[in-house]
Amino acid sequence: MRVGVFGATGAVGKELVQVLGDRGYPVTELRLFASNRSAGTRIPTPFGEKTIEVYDPASPPKLDLALLAVSGDWSKAHARELVAAGAVVVDNSSAFRLEKDVPLVVPEVNAAAAEGARLIANPNCTTAILAVALAPLHAEFGLRRVIVSTYQASSGAGAEGMQELEDGLREMLVNGGQPRNSVFRHPLPMNLIPHIDSFQPNGYTREEMKVTWETRKIMGLPDLLISCTAVRVPTLRAHAEAVTIETERPVTPEAARRVLSTAPGVKLTDDVENAIYPMPLTASGRYDVEAGRIRSNPVFGDRGLDFFVCGDQLLKGAALNAVQIAEALPVKLAA
Amino acid sequence: MRVGVFGATGAVGKELVQVLGDRGYPVTELRLFASNRSAGTRIPTPFGEKTIEVYDPASPPKLDLALLAVSGDWSKAHARELVAAGAVVVDNSSAFRLEKDVPLVVPEVNAAAAEGARLIANPNCTTAILAVALAPLHAEFGLRRVIVSTYQASSGAGAEGMQELEDGLREMLVNGGQPRNSVFRHPLPMNLIPHIDSFQPNGYTREEMKVTWETRKIMGLPDLLISCTAVRVPTLRAHAEAVTIETERPVTPEAARRVLSTAPGVKLTDDVENAIYPMPLTASGRYDVEAGRIRSNPVFGDRGLDFFVCGDQLLKGAALNAVQIAEALPVKLAA
Repeated sequence: MRVGVFGATGAVGKELVQVLGDRGYPVTELRLFASNRSAGTRIPTPFGEKTIEVYDPASPPKLDLALLAVSGDWSKAHARELVAAGAVVVDNSSAFRLEKDVPLVVPEVNAAAAEGARLIANPNCTTAILAVALAPLHAEFGLRRVIVSTYQASSGAGAEGMQELEDGLREMLVNGGQPRNSVFRHPLPMNLIPHIDSFQPNGYTREEMKVTWETRKIMGLPDLLISCTAVRVPTLRAHAEAVTIETERPVTPEAARRVLSTAPGVKLTDDVENAIYPMPLTASGRYDVEAGRIRSNPVFGDRGLDFFVCGDQLLKGAALNAVQIAEALPVKLAA
Repeated sequence: MRVGVFGATGAVGKELVQVLGDRGYPVTELRLFASNRSAGTRIPTPFGEKTIEVYDPASPPKLDLALLAVSGDWSKAHARELVAAGAVVVDNSSAFRLEKDVPLVVPEVNAAAAEGARLIANPNCTTAILAVALAPLHAEFGLRRVIVSTYQASSGAGAEGMQELEDGLREMLVNGGQPRNSVFRHPLPMNLIPHIDSFQPNGYTREEMKVTWETRKIMGLPDLLISCTAVRVPTLRAHAEAVTIETERPVTPEAARRVLSTAPGVKLTDDVENAIYPMPLTASGRYDVEAGRIRSNPVFGDRGLDFFVCGDQLLKGAALNAVQIAEALPVKLAA
């Protein structure tokens, strides 16, 4: 399979290359694309050393699979070009996620939606991490209401976001200075920023609405009552989410644990007596989303459940899910 | 007024002394008590340099006001002794908070409950910060359900907690080593720990149940449907909370803003166009609790409201509230 990774020098791009290698994706040829700045750089990959190329719209490369970890604008401009040149495109940006003819896929939840498609959208990181836990609970108990508060890592803003957090903390703790910020709207070290992506007229941020819009689309529940508060926290690369659900049918923690213990993509991480629960410390670098702190929420009587999830933002939240989509494609890719 | 501060060398104790000075509390004599380890140490205060004393149960000091920032065990053993010796005692521990004959007070909400009492409990930090915003909203719209996710700073575990976070971050970022932990159950740097205080049989932590139990008592709503997920985050000294409420009567963001803009102890911090919302960066060191990100939550139709609060854990969450209780005492203290 001829595979191209676009945005190959970014935080997600690097993970894409790594995940392709780790999962033994049948790569026969790997090509890496990035901006002019990195062009010509040679970097080691699980498929040998590769040279970063610049994409030329005048002659799109011949690829079977194009994995895009670039801006929404770039995707809008070039994704369909790559499809026309023969590639199946999995796009990590928000450009096509809500377009009617583009499937938005979390393979554990709606792999079938990708069938026959040649342009597939990879969901928002917070949404992907949530959906793997939410879908099996919906199948068993039915979802009536979902309320989510997020704890989102700096990696959501890319490698630059992680760097800004580390640099700022060093400045505070070593030099006693003030952290600088340009990636984040405010300094993130020792701070929390309840503002990710732009504010919408309804007072929610776009990030918060992505969780609503995309969860509905992935789960095929266009009227699901769901809301989110999205908060950037000073951590590196795993997002956590405190989730409260009201179900259609009675739910117990034991029954929910049983469901989540066999749910694909979920690692039941719920042994509070031994202080085991989802945390960035244990979820970082892992494929599965940790789910734990499962308990009845009395606010919704016998239909209320609380739980906490944590997943690697760069893996299930981005690169892993994209590669899983490629793996799940039921049609043989173009030769 | 002869005032004693117990646990004077701890994070809350230090703030108590500072707040007494800043607010011009009529201190005629200030005595500072701490453990043997600090005994004899002289420390500067707004009331002149003082020497740390060790409390002798055999001869309790003659005080009008005793502010306790000590462990629950210490309070249980000695608070009533201090009352018997003539002091009004404001206890910051959880020892007496749920005792029927001990008022639990957030002065902006239920100052009258302190009337005539000689032992008064200061609430859990998360609860105090929540209550100042919740009470005025309840008065106007009626509360039906409250769902809270917290973002709690290291200061909740005292000065040692703050130190462990800073030391661990330095170890990671300067030496490339692994952070050590003894105060927190897991390393807190770059991590989130959904575990504060001990786990209860119902799967909630004691910290989470404190928010339920104490909010009900302070607000005089013994049947309020309220749940909490409490998470320790790597910040220094301000707690934040994402709050979703369902109200009895229709609520709009505009009406909620109007209510919170004049609520005592609350600073409306809600100008998203200018990226102004509650954050530890702006709430730390301030008396008022910031409230913002106010928006309709469609999960509860026209009765749903989301908001975000942030307050200094050591001030409104502890020392400030205790001094405010002392200020609010309607009876003249014993001479």
